[in-house]
Amino acid sequence: MTLISMKKQSEIKAIALLTDFGLNDGYVGIMKGVIASINPNIPMIDLTHSIPPQQIWAARFCLMNAYPYFPKDTVYLAVVDPGVGSQRRSVAIECSQGYLVGPDNGLFSGILANNSALAAVSLTNTDYWRDPDVSLTFHGRDIFAPVAAYLASGVPLEALGDAIPIRSLVNFPLESPQITDKNIQGFIQYIDHFGNLITNVSSRQIKAKKWFIIIDNQVIQSGSTYSEVSPGKLIALIGSHGWVEIAVNGGNAQEKLQVKWGEKITINYQ
Amino acid sequence: MTLISMKKQSEIKAIALLTDFGLNDGYVGIMKGVIASINPNIPMIDLTHSIPPQQIWAARFCLMNAYPYFPKDTVYLAVVDPGVGSQRRSVAIECSQGYLVGPDNGLFSGILANNSALAAVSLTNTDYWRDPDVSLTFHGRDIFAPVAAYLASGVPLEALGDAIPIRSLVNFPLESPQITDKNIQGFIQYIDHFGNLITNVSSRQIKAKKWFIIIDNQVIQSGSTYSEVSPGKLIALIGSHGWVEIAVNGGNAQEKLQVKWGEKITINYQ
Amino acid sequence: MTLISMKKQSEIKAIALLTDFGLNDGYVGIMKGVIASINPNIPMIDLTHSIPPQQIWAARFCLMNAYPYFPKDTVYLAVVDPGVGSQRRSVAIECSQGYLVGPDNGLFSGILANNSALAAVSLTNTDYWRDPDVSLTFHGRDIFAPVAAYLASGVPLEALGDAIPIRSLVNFPLESPQITDKNIQGFIQYIDHFGNLITNVSSRQIKAKKWFIIIDNQVIQSGSTYSEVSPGKLIALIGSHGWVEIAVNGGNAQEKLQVKWGEKITINYQ
Repeated sequence: MTLISMKKQSEIKAIALLTDFGLNDGYVGIMKGVIASINPNIPMIDLTHSIPPQQIWAARFCLMNAYPYFPKDTVYLAVVDPGVGSQRRSVAIECSQGYLVGPDNGLFSGILANNSALAAVSLTNTDYWRDPDVSLTFHGRDIFAPVAAYLASGVPLEALGDAIPIRSLVNFPLESPQITDKNIQGFIQYIDHFGNLITNVSSRQIKAKKWFIIIDNQVIQSGSTYSEVSPGKLIALIGSHGWVEIAVNGGNAQEKLQVKWGEKITINYQ
Repeated sequence: MTLISMKKQSEIKAIALLTDFGLNDGYVGIMKGVIASINPNIPMIDLTHSIPPQQIWAARFCLMNAYPYFPKDTVYLAVVDPGVGSQRRSVAIECSQGYLVGPDNGLFSGILANNSALAAVSLTNTDYWRDPDVSLTFHGRDIFAPVAAYLASGVPLEALGDAIPIRSLVNFPLESPQITDKNIQGFIQYIDHFGNLITNVSSRQIKAKKWFIIIDNQVIQSGSTYSEVSPGKLIALIGSHGWVEIAVNGGNAQEKLQVKWGEKITINYQ
Repeated sequence: MTLISMKKQSEIKAIALLTDFGLNDGYVGIMKGVIASINPNIPMIDLTHSIPPQQIWAARFCLMNAYPYFPKDTVYLAVVDPGVGSQRRSVAIECSQGYLVGPDNGLFSGILANNSALAAVSLTNTDYWRDPDVSLTFHGRDIFAPVAAYLASGVPLEALGDAIPIRSLVNFPLESPQITDKNIQGFIQYIDHFGNLITNVSSRQIKAKKWFIIIDNQVIQSGSTYSEVSPGKLIALIGSHGWVEIAVNGGNAQEKLQVKWGEKITINYQ
């Protein structure tokens, strides 16, 4: 591990961090310490560290939704890593708007569904690890954080390891909505802090102005903003990231409906 | 949305962020991504993102207590927004020590009770929004974050929209303590992470050296520091922000007394 | 409190923050506001603010594990402070790799067990407090944050107060493992967010290749990485900080075993 010589601030990229480490234990702080040890001038922005432990699909969703809103050339450092210590690859990927660093387990497949990768490498060059004698359980600290710091500081992707085919990257399997002329069948792909139930149906897939959702035998009419229904009432609408979602005006749809991630929904036209 | 040309670091203001978004979903990270996309050199400091959903009064309390401790000209970006998508205004306010950006719903009325506003605008100039085609549910990302970033980068308040009368800003209604020569009647206005019960009575309103609190038929003697009572015992004292509070030495007063926000208290003199 | 004149960015030290304040109340944000008011260019990195209230031993553990991974000369600002307002000293300590600022209650004794202190002072010079008229309950805001900001900005340790003997610093009492030729007896010293049970036995103390742990009458075989056992199965291994720990592949050992911090363990050789 070598200290990067000072660059002009304008040439340094930001790092956006996402993990399932939580904020209780200092693990995230340690990754940031490793980054700052390599280059103290890298701006670091937390996406979230509260991904449910080892739930790749939740990480995939958050990364995909955040990607359009960050500066060009941001380095996304994401560690949700149930396969740490096994044979899964460590990768870095270059896209037109940013770089992705983490385990090759499908974490980034939401971003890659909407943005083509330009190049990918397996992180085999131990010069850019914290220590070649890496731990078997904390690659975030020992491999991913230092690699992200070097990328953010200007080290080119190809220096980090062996090139790998883009088509070889692991794709997280996620069922697409079933679309007919009559209806759309999908599921709840994410439940947020407000209890909003976010489906896997995109606003672009809805082909009529008037529609409603059926979930758990309950019919919910669509609208365009929370305040169209009385406080405490359910509404279906297009959320801020373009997904169909179910909400309660001034309340919590998850508490009201008691559904879980994966629950089936049907969208019908009127 | 335009990229701000690089300013000298010393001319850039910090942004202090407060929301009820929680830290689970990446919403706060997305707002920071929007800010960094406009100007990567703005320092961002989190106040809290764990305001109970849509509880304006808790946000008002935290903002009011934090305001005296931040650098001059800090931009306070606060989003607790039960009325998003309705007719409530989006505003920016200039005070002598800082700028306030958020929905016009009383969030800032605690700060404004102690610090006079110099000017206020309604955020009608879409040039400073992320996209004029704004979402109906996430004004934090689409309006407030970019406006705060431009303000922090040197755009003057009056460029952000139409001037509005300061007296037209929404004032969050909060009952004042009832003060007589004999006693003071107030209520618990905030319960913190340690379980300290913070009343709405200020130390300046207490007119004698010896006093005690009655809450839920229990009498609690006053002192000046936790360690004046044995571990596990209740004490009433003046907290670090100047409010009368109830605490337990080495313990949690909320767990001991099982009271809620809004619970009535009486302060008596001896 | 005086504003520090601008230094070259390269001369400014980072501050790593650890508290038991939680992230709900804005207390951490206020400390950062105080730091930024003194010097807006200090990088601040959160270690954790979720130490269980007033649990010095958990703070001691997190600080000790993080210390090796931060830049040289980082200032560690740690506030877990059950004795605030009593006679406990406020201290700053210089080590070869960093500075420690906080209450003298044993918080730093894990770091100091592995790294010798070079000098220590009692924080008696009120010129470097936020206000000589300090609150009795929030020394983090009024003493420790400003002192850390001045240290990070180049104020020398000896200016902060009276020198005190290093041997006079409070040492947090923690039982060492009992080691014989046949076995090692220790306890669970930390349980992390993933439910991993971290013992107080270091990998260096194990003197044979084949070993197993007994906890709560259950025998757990050792391995080198989670994936050596089937998903849902228990394994004992050397964790990423060099401690013997008990984990479940893809699961939560704490939920499975229902043990608490302090639970006894025995390591036997085969």
